[in-house]
Amino acid sequence: MRERLMELLEERKEEIVQIRRYLHENPELSFKEEKTAQYIIDFYKGKDVEIQTDVGNGHGIIVTIKGGKHGKTIGLRADFDALPIVEETDVPFKSKNEGVMHACGHDGHTAYLLVLADCFIQLKESLAGTIKIIHQHAEEVPPGGAKSIVESGVLDDVDNVFGIHLFPTHPAGYVGYRSGYSLAGRTFFKLAIQGIGGHGSSPHLANDAIVAGAHFVTAVQTVISRRLNPFDMGVITIGSFDGKGTFNVIKDRVELDGDVRYMTVENQALIDNEIHRIVHGIEVEFGVECELTYTADYPPLYNDPEITKNVVASLEAINDSDIKEVFEYPMLSGSEDFAYYLEKIPGCFFYIGCKPKGVDKAFFNHHPKFDIDEDALLVAAKSVAQVVCSYYEKA
Amino acid sequence: MRERLMELLEERKEEIVQIRRYLHENPELSFKEEKTAQYIIDFYKGKDVEIQTDVGNGHGIIVTIKGGKHGKTIGLRADFDALPIVEETDVPFKSKNEGVMHACGHDGHTAYLLVLADCFIQLKESLAGTIKIIHQHAEEVPPGGAKSIVESGVLDDVDNVFGIHLFPTHPAGYVGYRSGYSLAGRTFFKLAIQGIGGHGSSPHLANDAIVAGAHFVTAVQTVISRRLNPFDMGVITIGSFDGKGTFNVIKDRVELDGDVRYMTVENQALIDNEIHRIVHGIEVEFGVECELTYTADYPPLYNDPEITKNVVASLEAINDSDIKEVFEYPMLSGSEDFAYYLEKIPGCFFYIGCKPKGVDKAFFNHHPKFDIDEDALLVAAKSVAQVVCSYYEKA
Amino acid sequence: MRERLMELLEERKEEIVQIRRYLHENPELSFKEEKTAQYIIDFYKGKDVEIQTDVGNGHGIIVTIKGGKHGKTIGLRADFDALPIVEETDVPFKSKNEGVMHACGHDGHTAYLLVLADCFIQLKESLAGTIKIIHQHAEEVPPGGAKSIVESGVLDDVDNVFGIHLFPTHPAGYVGYRSGYSLAGRTFFKLAIQGIGGHGSSPHLANDAIVAGAHFVTAVQTVISRRLNPFDMGVITIGSFDGKGTFNVIKDRVELDGDVRYMTVENQALIDNEIHRIVHGIEVEFGVECELTYTADYPPLYNDPEITKNVVASLEAINDSDIKEVFEYPMLSGSEDFAYYLEKIPGCFFYIGCKPKGVDKAFFNHHPKFDIDEDALLVAAKSVAQVVCSYYEKA
Amino acid sequence: MRERLMELLEERKEEIVQIRRYLHENPELSFKEEKTAQYIIDFYKGKDVEIQTDVGNGHGIIVTIKGGKHGKTIGLRADFDALPIVEETDVPFKSKNEGVMHACGHDGHTAYLLVLADCFIQLKESLAGTIKIIHQHAEEVPPGGAKSIVESGVLDDVDNVFGIHLFPTHPAGYVGYRSGYSLAGRTFFKLAIQGIGGHGSSPHLANDAIVAGAHFVTAVQTVISRRLNPFDMGVITIGSFDGKGTFNVIKDRVELDGDVRYMTVENQALIDNEIHRIVHGIEVEFGVECELTYTADYPPLYNDPEITKNVVASLEAINDSDIKEVFEYPMLSGSEDFAYYLEKIPGCFFYIGCKPKGVDKAFFNHHPKFDIDEDALLVAAKSVAQVVCSYYEKA
Repeated sequence: MRERLMELLEERKEEIVQIRRYLHENPELSFKEEKTAQYIIDFYKGKDVEIQTDVGNGHGIIVTIKGGKHGKTIGLRADFDALPIVEETDVPFKSKNEGVMHACGHDGHTAYLLVLADCFIQLKESLAGTIKIIHQHAEEVPPGGAKSIVESGVLDDVDNVFGIHLFPTHPAGYVGYRSGYSLAGRTFFKLAIQGIGGHGSSPHLANDAIVAGAHFVTAVQTVISRRLNPFDMGVITIGSFDGKGTFNVIKDRVELDGDVRYMTVENQALIDNEIHRIVHGIEVEFGVECELTYTADYPPLYNDPEITKNVVASLEAINDSDIKEVFEYPMLSGSEDFAYYLEKIPGCFFYIGCKPKGVDKAFFNHHPKFDIDEDALLVAAKSVAQVVCSYYEKA
Repeated sequence: MRERLMELLEERKEEIVQIRRYLHENPELSFKEEKTAQYIIDFYKGKDVEIQTDVGNGHGIIVTIKGGKHGKTIGLRADFDALPIVEETDVPFKSKNEGVMHACGHDGHTAYLLVLADCFIQLKESLAGTIKIIHQHAEEVPPGGAKSIVESGVLDDVDNVFGIHLFPTHPAGYVGYRSGYSLAGRTFFKLAIQGIGGHGSSPHLANDAIVAGAHFVTAVQTVISRRLNPFDMGVITIGSFDGKGTFNVIKDRVELDGDVRYMTVENQALIDNEIHRIVHGIEVEFGVECELTYTADYPPLYNDPEITKNVVASLEAINDSDIKEVFEYPMLSGSEDFAYYLEKIPGCFFYIGCKPKGVDKAFFNHHPKFDIDEDALLVAAKSVAQVVCSYYEKA
Repeated sequence: MRERLMELLEERKEEIVQIRRYLHENPELSFKEEKTAQYIIDFYKGKDVEIQTDVGNGHGIIVTIKGGKHGKTIGLRADFDALPIVEETDVPFKSKNEGVMHACGHDGHTAYLLVLADCFIQLKESLAGTIKIIHQHAEEVPPGGAKSIVESGVLDDVDNVFGIHLFPTHPAGYVGYRSGYSLAGRTFFKLAIQGIGGHGSSPHLANDAIVAGAHFVTAVQTVISRRLNPFDMGVITIGSFDGKGTFNVIKDRVELDGDVRYMTVENQALIDNEIHRIVHGIEVEFGVECELTYTADYPPLYNDPEITKNVVASLEAINDSDIKEVFEYPMLSGSEDFAYYLEKIPGCFFYIGCKPKGVDKAFFNHHPKFDIDEDALLVAAKSVAQVVCSYYEKA
Repeated sequence: MRERLMELLEERKEEIVQIRRYLHENPELSFKEEKTAQYIIDFYKGKDVEIQTDVGNGHGIIVTIKGGKHGKTIGLRADFDALPIVEETDVPFKSKNEGVMHACGHDGHTAYLLVLADCFIQLKESLAGTIKIIHQHAEEVPPGGAKSIVESGVLDDVDNVFGIHLFPTHPAGYVGYRSGYSLAGRTFFKLAIQGIGGHGSSPHLANDAIVAGAHFVTAVQTVISRRLNPFDMGVITIGSFDGKGTFNVIKDRVELDGDVRYMTVENQALIDNEIHRIVHGIEVEFGVECELTYTADYPPLYNDPEITKNVVASLEAINDSDIKEVFEYPMLSGSEDFAYYLEKIPGCFFYIGCKPKGVDKAFFNHHPKFDIDEDALLVAAKSVAQVVCSYYEKA
């Protein structure tokens, strides 16, 4: 099957590009991807597959390709939402939807996977198992569409799951991987500290919320500096300290917003526990009332080491001039809701270089000038094809 | 002169009340007291005095009463501006100027002093010196009218200066005094801390202004706790910590507003110096840029001890059933721009009880329900009359 | 009685001096004043008084002088212990007890009171009440002898109590007083913070007690800066932060010693409460275990205002060339166990100037070169005599 | 040469063990390894090599083995000092030098290298280059012997350098490696903060060094929490805060000792810079004088990636039943003075598992019960032999 699949993909390279351009021109925001979803549904119309729509809490679509032989079930996922960004590129297929832009490459993800899925459908008699194509909505807005798709149960029979992301840090042809924890988990919190207001000249009749808030900011630093294993990654950022008031009035209340990052569930739990502890300590210490809303949105993304090893081995063995190098990628502080799939289903999420040709340092994802080398799309398709073929051969 | 003066005042008690009610009904904001100033000018029309108008940076009025004999020159001051407060009393002469209210008793100050001045004019042949009546604008808005009147030079020949304030902490008939430092000086400051913004997950690429701001708040407490003589009064309130931002973006800049109180010029200087030092330390420690605007608005009010002693002695000797008790008043954390006169001219500023009859705890100055016992106006007039008479007798 | 009393005192001026010099030459430490006590007991031998010895937790002596007429009972107190100081004066009656010195004037207190008591004994037929002479041991070592004497019950029938202290801030002839709270109360505390030790490179496996201790020091500043009325006196000093260890071992335990001062029982309670709160907050915040021993040793000394007024009036009326000026003394941050008497029995503790003649700035109490003008001893005797006489006249 | 070398080593396995036991029984402290050095010198006596003794600042020995053919020069290092630890094992060859113990495996390092060196000497005609055997003194006492050996210039002609360490985390047969930064660098510092002492009740007359020290401890946490890349390792431990004093005396001086760890020279520089900055900030902020002695003792140990790759490849290709697994080792927070060689000469330092048989969790290096599986010694010898052979084959 592998050879035929690669041939088909090469033949349809231009089609992938055209789909991607269409999607790029017609971006839709998370949870509002109606036309995009319809486009995908239309793509599969008449093909011998089962389609589930409106999966999860939005426009999620699951396409089930049953192979000719019995075997394992894998999930392949591409996300399809865009971002609230005013595009600043000069491409001829620039966004027609002013203020919305495919600045994260989801157009490319969807384009390659549609065509790859179609190829699998064509060759499904040779397929020794089942492939569930996951067209996912709303990756950009925490907690994202992935969580709800997992919770919907449609993936309960999936043995392993794979996904890719386009990153312009490397040129087309470069495929990056990382075993184990790879992308950061993220939590945000809101902390309201309620003291008692009063006249600036009479602190003893008030309870200054700004002073309590300052001590919280100071104390919370110790979670990173003294509680975390120094070899582990962790960040606590207080991005907002809203204590605006009048110079001669003691502030009764401040509201803080915080951002927490970590690379393991153990550190997620540790930081969670410590922040709660410190907040309670501040309450006792300063006699204020604290209200803490603490919300973990994305878990850290964990690539199964055994599966990742197989992915790397299969990619290194591909012998295809389009795939030039397979390399280890560093951990990233960014987050991905693909992590929700990997919480339940072992799998691997890897990276496809897409740096535009002739560019030294490309604009990164989410930049209004984000652009890709469209050659990367075929690399994505071939890489995933290779991974799937090896998977079933080995299984 | 004293006896005749007291008789005249008693006769005109009702007139004082009527003037006060007129002013109360027609309050004007600081620097906008045009009608009030005209009312005062009209009052003196045709009387044998010199009138200077538009003194200082507003509608200040100086009325010079030259006595029949040569002698010392004293200043008597009453302020006449009102506050941006919506009156909530039920008095029949409630403010007609919605949103503006004589909630600090300046109506009463002016009413008693107009009539007292008129009495002095009548009796001026017996006066062994010169009295300058200071009708002062804009006491409520720092740095107030007093400063500019002093700077105008019109008081350069004044030997001593007196003033009173109506306080509803005690009933009419109670006269409070305090020797030495009596009312707090006040400084306000603005501190902008400029760091470098960045993504919440990458603190090393940014310089978190919230963290630097929190350390400033924490460190500045030590000025009060460790630098100030524990027997001395001092307050530093950070009333505003404006660091509102987004949870996952490191804040590049915070702006703090602070309020400083002190009872002596020595402590004013000490706190000034320490805050500047700490701000500079924070710059060095955190590599941020700080911009500090530090503005002393009212100095601490200092009653000359010798003059205050004489004031107390004369009041205690008055033998007038309207003046029931002369008592020592505690230091107050509030401020008064009368302090500017006392910086240059020795004198005494004392307090006239005006608690409404039948009330247990009165609404304090600046409250929308602030009210006075109008009997206090005659007490004010007689007290100042007595002080002036004793002054010239002794001189 | 007054006149005769004053005559007697003048006649015995030299005797007072000799007694004082004997005591100065033979100082004894707190709780070890055996010879001094015996000297006092011997002094009263054969006199018509009741003597109670070993009162309280040491060598306290109560001498009860019953007057010829029935009336109120007052207590007059002089302390008699010395300090562990190597005397550095050149007086001929320098301490013979190397390392022990009457550097606080208790020798003078006892000398004048012995003679005054003897005079009262002589004149007791004219006395309209009872005088209890309190010769008190151990004033210098908290909680001092006063507490135990009060607890012993021997003063339960005392209506009012008086005492004086020699202070070399003013010359002989100057008598200082202060109404209300006059001398600071004092508390000391020990705070042990127990974390978990560990290797310097692995903070996550330990719990750093130094970091928790530093946060305590930082947070406790806010009690003074934000909890205390800015017009009130309060001090919290952490005089010892014992966290000595090895640079590369995380410290498991630190021990802090603190000193707290206040001028009112309300502030004593407020600071007590706040420090306990902060300690508990630190426990919660840092997950350490804190052990706090918090010991109030001397209460703030409170002179009854009415009694103080009478004392001042009687002293101002004395018409005696030895007593030159009666003046208001500022509040002092020092402490006195006389405060324990005043907790239970209204009274007045006042100050007798004793600055050596020809000296500009005298060495203060507790200095190895502390010295007094012995003329002050007669001033003390006459002042207390005057206060007692006026007391019984008025009663 | 490789085959013959391996045969020779197998034959001399028991000799290696005996040497190790002799050394174990006769441990000597750093800089005092006279007998050990003599033992090594004696070992080479009569062999056709050049020996340099007393190299560096102690008993360092360099043995130069010139190969039969011209080629590159490599250094092989084993350290030979012991620790001030009372041995608590039950081995028959337990330390005879009470209080000194080979608890870090240096006995094994030296034993295997002596025999391996001897084998190279035997086979040197086949050797296509020069081997410098570095018998190093004083590894355990910073800055260690390595630094002085490098500075002596004896290694100036060495192209690459190799070394191993015995670690009981894995059984004999396991060889661990890590590319790039592998072991932490370490700095210690002393910070004296000089304020002004004073009486506990008068903070305004003093300058409290404890408060300044507490703010330093609090502020320095932000270097780790906000300045360091969250993916990077860094630790700042204040292991000693010596501020012992008396509760009622304001402390004039505190002395802090700190320990700093980092994995890269960039972070070494960053933390160095930040601590200096904060110290200077504290000086400005609190008006204290700070004296900072900041001493970097071990640099982070950096294994050249290319060389490490070759080491791993050669070890993986060894096909020897004694060498069971070659695996990637995590970064360690410990330090090694081998880092000084690697600062100047590219090379690789790797780890030889030596966990005693039948033990679940072995006592780690520096523990009084530290013990090794002596089979590991042959593994060490063969591994280094293999690395050297491959090196010259490739060169």
